[in-house]
Amino acid sequence: MENDLILLGHGSGGKLSHQLLDSLIIPALSSTLPAGQNDAALLEVSGARLAFTTDSYVVDPIFFPGGNIGDLAVNGTVNDLAMMGARPLFLSVGLILEEGFSQADLSRILASMRSAADAAGIAIVTGDTKVVPKGKADRIFINTSGIGVLEHGLRIDGAAGRVGDKVIVNGSIGDHGIAVLSAREGLEIDSGIKSDSAALNGLVGELLALGTGLHALRDPTRGGVATTLKEIALQSGVTIMLHEESLPVNAGVRGVCAILGLDPLYVANEGKLLALVAPERAEEALEIMRRHPLGAGAAVIGELVENSAGRVMMETSVGGVRGVEMLAGEQLPRIC
Amino acid sequence: MENDLILLGHGSGGKLSHQLLDSLIIPALSSTLPAGQNDAALLEVSGARLAFTTDSYVVDPIFFPGGNIGDLAVNGTVNDLAMMGARPLFLSVGLILEEGFSQADLSRILASMRSAADAAGIAIVTGDTKVVPKGKADRIFINTSGIGVLEHGLRIDGAAGRVGDKVIVNGSIGDHGIAVLSAREGLEIDSGIKSDSAALNGLVGELLALGTGLHALRDPTRGGVATTLKEIALQSGVTIMLHEESLPVNAGVRGVCAILGLDPLYVANEGKLLALVAPERAEEALEIMRRHPLGAGAAVIGELVENSAGRVMMETSVGGVRGVEMLAGEQLPRIC
Repeated sequence: MENDLILLGHGSGGKLSHQLLDSLIIPALSSTLPAGQNDAALLEVSGARLAFTTDSYVVDPIFFPGGNIGDLAVNGTVNDLAMMGARPLFLSVGLILEEGFSQADLSRILASMRSAADAAGIAIVTGDTKVVPKGKADRIFINTSGIGVLEHGLRIDGAAGRVGDKVIVNGSIGDHGIAVLSAREGLEIDSGIKSDSAALNGLVGELLALGTGLHALRDPTRGGVATTLKEIALQSGVTIMLHEESLPVNAGVRGVCAILGLDPLYVANEGKLLALVAPERAEEALEIMRRHPLGAGAAVIGELVENSAGRVMMETSVGGVRGVEMLAGEQLPRIC
Repeated sequence: MENDLILLGHGSGGKLSHQLLDSLIIPALSSTLPAGQNDAALLEVSGARLAFTTDSYVVDPIFFPGGNIGDLAVNGTVNDLAMMGARPLFLSVGLILEEGFSQADLSRILASMRSAADAAGIAIVTGDTKVVPKGKADRIFINTSGIGVLEHGLRIDGAAGRVGDKVIVNGSIGDHGIAVLSAREGLEIDSGIKSDSAALNGLVGELLALGTGLHALRDPTRGGVATTLKEIALQSGVTIMLHEESLPVNAGVRGVCAILGLDPLYVANEGKLLALVAPERAEEALEIMRRHPLGAGAAVIGELVENSAGRVMMETSVGGVRGVEMLAGEQLPRIC
């Protein structure tokens, strides 16, 4: 039966991913999995409060405008720690290489990892390298796992959203997905769009000044802004109302999306965060973001309007209101 | 040029792996990589002393006598923590799945991971799942990263060996490699050998009673006992003398090795440790091991005989002495 096999959509970050997680992976692995729907697990060891997270990267192509699989793997894991309000400290690197992979490409990728780690202030402390025969993997896959430390008592959690909260994004959406897609063999569209891949821990460090006014942080990667907001809506038990007109989308992203029939709301980002902020602190949050190099394009894109079982709605540019669901299927395999 | 490409031997754990690490990976990634030649990095966070390690598993076949890729991935990372004298606490699981992989097989593998984690007393706390198109990976690859805590002040380190130390192994060598090899498609030898895959943290916990008499611990996985001892000899700057007659090798392993021209000294283990113990505590170490279910076959297999640039020698069964080098090339790809 087809539903007994793993489908590409199970890696989408969207609806099928959630089904696989909820029906198979989480029940099998653990009664706990404290990471739950958040980006990292919060742990306590000998009085130290830690965040711990892991991600594997299988992006195709491995080099794309604005980055490569190496800096992506560092930034992605740094961001998962940052979204918990943790200060990233230590990173592990697990390489799976295909026999015949170019050592020059490997060097270039590792150099990018080092630069990205230095820029984020995280130390690469341990690693592992496996090689599989030609044809048994696609060039290079990278796992990064990260440890961060929580140095504050705030509860920053996808379940901590409250009615009234503003939803703020730190800039334009969809850039990473479109940059990778544009570089893909056979497509090679010259969109002029670069991946937004960047470490967000510096920006998050500034946002912590909001104190208890900062309720949730999440980076909208696989599945895009739509899927991430749907997750938050479910976790917090609220309805989120988006305003289509306020979504920051670059013209190049809009163009490619129009040609390929994609919706920027579902396209992956790698240097963006969604912040849920108490309404009275929203203006301050915007100011903090706009002062930061990674937040110049910050915008309020919606708000939490009512307690519910977890809906996302959008006021469209043409004046209607429509429901926003998680990504169904897989529109862009191997985007990260 | 051929030497610009990644070769299977770069994943062997032997000489080529060391060359790639020393010439390319470590210089690129870090001036530090505190894990160095040890199995895990030792870190300090807010006063807590942690060990952190990562490993990717690409074993073929994924099911083999005595285990599967799932429990192997848990035990391997637990053991890397245990070899630093750390108590394993938290595990991450990163899955890379090939489109079309069987969900039933996935369930079986995850159930084994859960059982292995429960047995080792480590909590699976965070995870990630990626799916790549059919043909872009081989069924399933698993990364596990682990965090442990050091609850003692001992220095257990491959560089801490001293002349006079006894080299003790907790049982028969080569079982894992031969079990996996026997199960490989096209070979399917009925050797009766099962993988020794097991979590060694319980046994290590007992060995900590040796206090400062316990100098080094290492699990001889890829590259086998020979490669691991060569690493320790280099780290400690000593010559290690092995006694071929005292090496515990099962008859089935001996048989398959004889047929295939393999040397059990180079075959991977996944439930074995090598301990360097001060001579006056060696008897006690043996007793501790033999009382433990995973140490019934413990034996002294050699000793550190002189300070040197790092040699391993072996008194052979026929009365000669020969040098033992690291694994050259790759005799058994995808053994873990």
